[in-house]
Amino acid sequence: MENILIIGGVAAGMSAASRARRVAPEARVTVLERGPAVSYGACGLPGVLAGRIQRLEDLVAHPVEFFREQRGIEVRPGHEALEIEPGRRRVRARSEAGESWLSYDRLVIATGARSRWLPAGPRLRHVYAANTWDQVAQLRAALESGEIRRVAVVGAGYIGLEMAEALAQRGGLEVHLIHANATPLRGFDGDMVAELPARIAAAGITLHAGCRVRELAGPEGGRLLGVATSSGVIPADALVNCGGLRPETALAERAGILLGRSGAIAVDERQQTSVAGIYAAGDCAETRHRVSGAPVWIPLGAAANHQGRVAGQNAAGRRAARYPGVMGTLAVPLFGLEFGRTGLGESEARAAGMDAAATTVRAATRAAYMRGAPGVPEGEITLKIVYQPSTRRLLGCQAWGPAGAVTGQLDVAVTACSAGMKLEDVEHLDLAYSPALAPLYEPLQIAAHNALQDTAAST
Amino acid sequence: MENILIIGGVAAGMSAASRARRVAPEARVTVLERGPAVSYGACGLPGVLAGRIQRLEDLVAHPVEFFREQRGIEVRPGHEALEIEPGRRRVRARSEAGESWLSYDRLVIATGARSRWLPAGPRLRHVYAANTWDQVAQLRAALESGEIRRVAVVGAGYIGLEMAEALAQRGGLEVHLIHANATPLRGFDGDMVAELPARIAAAGITLHAGCRVRELAGPEGGRLLGVATSSGVIPADALVNCGGLRPETALAERAGILLGRSGAIAVDERQQTSVAGIYAAGDCAETRHRVSGAPVWIPLGAAANHQGRVAGQNAAGRRAARYPGVMGTLAVPLFGLEFGRTGLGESEARAAGMDAAATTVRAATRAAYMRGAPGVPEGEITLKIVYQPSTRRLLGCQAWGPAGAVTGQLDVAVTACSAGMKLEDVEHLDLAYSPALAPLYEPLQIAAHNALQDTAAST
Repeated sequence: MENILIIGGVAAGMSAASRARRVAPEARVTVLERGPAVSYGACGLPGVLAGRIQRLEDLVAHPVEFFREQRGIEVRPGHEALEIEPGRRRVRARSEAGESWLSYDRLVIATGARSRWLPAGPRLRHVYAANTWDQVAQLRAALESGEIRRVAVVGAGYIGLEMAEALAQRGGLEVHLIHANATPLRGFDGDMVAELPARIAAAGITLHAGCRVRELAGPEGGRLLGVATSSGVIPADALVNCGGLRPETALAERAGILLGRSGAIAVDERQQTSVAGIYAAGDCAETRHRVSGAPVWIPLGAAANHQGRVAGQNAAGRRAARYPGVMGTLAVPLFGLEFGRTGLGESEARAAGMDAAATTVRAATRAAYMRGAPGVPEGEITLKIVYQPSTRRLLGCQAWGPAGAVTGQLDVAVTACSAGMKLEDVEHLDLAYSPALAPLYEPLQIAAHNALQDTAAST
Repeated sequence: MENILIIGGVAAGMSAASRARRVAPEARVTVLERGPAVSYGACGLPGVLAGRIQRLEDLVAHPVEFFREQRGIEVRPGHEALEIEPGRRRVRARSEAGESWLSYDRLVIATGARSRWLPAGPRLRHVYAANTWDQVAQLRAALESGEIRRVAVVGAGYIGLEMAEALAQRGGLEVHLIHANATPLRGFDGDMVAELPARIAAAGITLHAGCRVRELAGPEGGRLLGVATSSGVIPADALVNCGGLRPETALAERAGILLGRSGAIAVDERQQTSVAGIYAAGDCAETRHRVSGAPVWIPLGAAANHQGRVAGQNAAGRRAARYPGVMGTLAVPLFGLEFGRTGLGESEARAAGMDAAATTVRAATRAAYMRGAPGVPEGEITLKIVYQPSTRRLLGCQAWGPAGAVTGQLDVAVTACSAGMKLEDVEHLDLAYSPALAPLYEPLQIAAHNALQDTAAST
């Protein structure tokens, strides 16, 4: 009987476990998870803080018992993997019951990511990370106790923005959003997020842009009092660190597994690491960018699930599965709007050695005369495409507009980029049209058309 | 100075005119339109009958004066083309002012489609077609006069269904929907529209399925009294004929221009007809199916606009443009739901000589825990893919679900089919994910995954 062991039980880990079980019904499949819960939707954590989602448990797709009883997967929450011994094919783990060694035939590492930590300083209470069940549970308890009045959120990437918005939605809190860059939402060009600062302010959040955290203020072991920054001291009762993630690779590194250029665990198309029989997937693993072909580390939930499936299928050792790589696709609802991006930006394309140009359009989401009819949200989308003038290939796309109206366009761009489509292929796609559901010419098609005119005019 | 003449001023015709003007700023561009208005959104006509759109004029993208004054296009409403004389490059037209000959260097035929007419019988009042400004204006006037209490809509294709729904939404009317086939909404498999009959009934519409119109009852020259059908007589004060369209080809045929196998005007990729210098576009023209490669006639508004652009650019004689063909993509909101299809159905694929199989899934539009948050409409989508087992190529897709939640998935399928993607390409597309905006695995990806399992299991 084959013995498949998986370290990590959130997105990639549980996908790997479910897939391994499916293709190898007779195998033994065991999952070690450090935290108290498995298979939860980490992307819903801000909703819990906002109070829109009542219980953390609502984020759980399936409870531990479901996996044990319905799927025959041995799930062990509260088990932290401490060491991998590839030579003897075993893992040392710690739980409340003590330490033990678990053997495996094939191993999947899905240890995820952790917050890039803040400058060293005193250990203080009410300093939280944003990305785990535990941390959000503790933060919520602190908020509910009433002792928190001022919160500093560090980092205005999509997680920091979602967190700040969620905290503002609770009401009664003074929310500060501290960001090192000049513009929020990394991965988007400045002109595509120009609307954001006003929306952030309208939500009652104070944005400190171009501001670096120097030190956390407070007595060792006591409560946080404030955040010393390059722009002065911001008084705060609590801090939520959304200041970037890094791959959780310590366990793999100590086992002699190679990291890639990006600093995440190097894997091949089958998600196998440098050690035969050991796979890695999700936020701890490097992957290949589908447009540039370069090794990248882009931690996002959907890709983690896909990689987990591939790792699980290969660990089960039946038919080989391959993961074709990521596009860095991100969609996030913020302040009633939706922001999305995929593929390469202009500077990313140039860094990858490609010639690149961009075209931006602003267009309606549907026919104006259908006002009020059910369908896609009404309003305008701003959409930018990045393309390669020499080949006319579509390289990437960024867009923003009313919440719910952007993802469809973005997914067409994802598909077109993945297929290596050229501007002329995109221009005349026979996309769905109905006046309440879509515009006659989709913004993506208008952008492709305009880009072709620009390309023709310059040759 | 080049002289470009266009017959027809709705979708394809006005697109051709605008494009010709753009690429050949010095050319003379003239449009002849039989009806009173040009450049209107025919897809919005049901909304006018429903009363949701106040005025027919609201459907007009740009008035005649805009084209004349802003774009320098000579638009002539109320001008009917009677004859094309290709040898002398001229067209005879009739207007209130009488008949005249107009010469051209290049001609675009965009005469559209007309309703397939009902069985011969007495000429009766209150018998209308559904697809033109004139007819809808007259029907609305009749409805507003109060003399209509019972309306029979003939044909439960998407136009007939939209019309019946719109008439029911007016209130105070008894609406009968007469359909020759057993199931409504041609182009969709029976299992994909199983929900429709109950929705039609809940809207207060009486569906007569498997019912053929035999005769219209009433005294010659007088009012319609009823519709004699294969299922008996249905009393009715008015009839709206949505019983299928056919291409308006009479003018082209008389000029010796060849029709294709489909019965519409044959054109090449540049939209040129069998006569050099004469182009055709939109609902009067045949086109190529992008998946099967077969010549087809599929009259739909978005494709008409695209073909018009291509015809206009080529008529202007600068850079050649090519139209890559249609996918038969249709999306329509009906009774709070949305129905969409693209590409080939199973039987269409087999008729085109391909092996074909289908897989259907039912899946959530977004994460359950985001209930109430802004984003894509909540609910479940039912989605069927058609694929070719021997090549694993995606051939087509049908889907239905909450209004506004289907088009995005459908457009990904359009793009994937156009690119010739295989199931494994679709399965791991890095599509946008955010819990309020999309599900972790899109229905299309789940379907591709399941189909791959079926394919693997059978080999």
